[in-house]
Amino acid sequence: MGKKGLLLIISGPSGAGKGTIVKALQREIPTLIVSISATTRQARGGEVDGVDYFFLERDIFNKMIDEGQLLEWAQVYGNYYGTPRHFVLEALERGNDVILEIDIQGALQVKKKLPEAVLIFIAPPSRTELQQRLFGRKSDSREEIEKRLQCMAGEMKLAAGYDYIVVNDSIRRAIDNIRAIILAEKCRTWRLQPIIDHLSQLGG
Amino acid sequence: MGKKGLLLIISGPSGAGKGTIVKALQREIPTLIVSISATTRQARGGEVDGVDYFFLERDIFNKMIDEGQLLEWAQVYGNYYGTPRHFVLEALERGNDVILEIDIQGALQVKKKLPEAVLIFIAPPSRTELQQRLFGRKSDSREEIEKRLQCMAGEMKLAAGYDYIVVNDSIRRAIDNIRAIILAEKCRTWRLQPIIDHLSQLGG
Repeated sequence: MGKKGLLLIISGPSGAGKGTIVKALQREIPTLIVSISATTRQARGGEVDGVDYFFLERDIFNKMIDEGQLLEWAQVYGNYYGTPRHFVLEALERGNDVILEIDIQGALQVKKKLPEAVLIFIAPPSRTELQQRLFGRKSDSREEIEKRLQCMAGEMKLAAGYDYIVVNDSIRRAIDNIRAIILAEKCRTWRLQPIIDHLSQLGG
Repeated sequence: MGKKGLLLIISGPSGAGKGTIVKALQREIPTLIVSISATTRQARGGEVDGVDYFFLERDIFNKMIDEGQLLEWAQVYGNYYGTPRHFVLEALERGNDVILEIDIQGALQVKKKLPEAVLIFIAPPSRTELQQRLFGRKSDSREEIEKRLQCMAGEMKLAAGYDYIVVNDSIRRAIDNIRAIILAEKCRTWRLQPIIDHLSQLGG
């Protein structure tokens, strides 16, 4: 092929279904690579280094920040998380499409560095539906859920900076829409300058 | 649904396969409406008024131009051709997606009036391939074919103003790409302001 892959960034409020969708995409599109984040937090039970995260010492992480080796990074509850630049760019160069599942702040950081990135926001079909899903998970306290719902209101305003919004009213439909976005983005005129140049040549 | 349909405009050089692709899309997507052009030229054998074209007298056509009833129009070899505004807008309001198969000049006229229109340029995979297809049709003279190839070089420069380029290296793949573009365009953030507004509300 010789064609660069597509960088997709997926964000969305907790409970919108990002994780399920990304796992399904990975299953259905074998050439799709899901980026692995680096973090300074301790591995939890069952988490594997290089699979779930790259678990790094704080000084290594700091060095990566200083050397510009992270496409984006953030500190959350005292731990650092970031996206290793090399991992992503290498996969794109090989022609693989790459998915980053990161938060909005991170997504906007990456878009600044790599404007060709495609930002997809996964939204729940409604506030009520999200509320029900969060309560249904039973893993969060009522207080935590209320905080998440409030958080979403603010996030949705930032979602206006995204290229696409995929409403997750059905997992199947959401996946089909993202697959369509991947195909469609590869047809965008500004990504196809070589074929335009070839066909605009005069003479055989 | 209550949602407006999508307006797709398809153009491309003669021999790129527009006609075949549009017919296949119409077969596969029953709710898709292909716009019927108005023309002042005489109906040819087998052509049906209201199916192939709306065949109009010159004075009616002029009146439609004066009253702004055409989304675009052009004069070709002494005959007038145009896209009736009412037919297209009514279908879009009903929620149907509408396809216009028109030339680049017309497409750019429509895009000015309806910026939400999606412009798709069907391109042959290469100059050589297009040449072979045109010779293969046997309906055009060698002179005519040479003129068309020259014409394409100029057209490709204008194609830079299109949203998408679909390279027709295989009819099946071209159709799948256009179906993907339809799905993807419906997820574009700027088309989804109502869901953003709903989810950004604070409180229940």
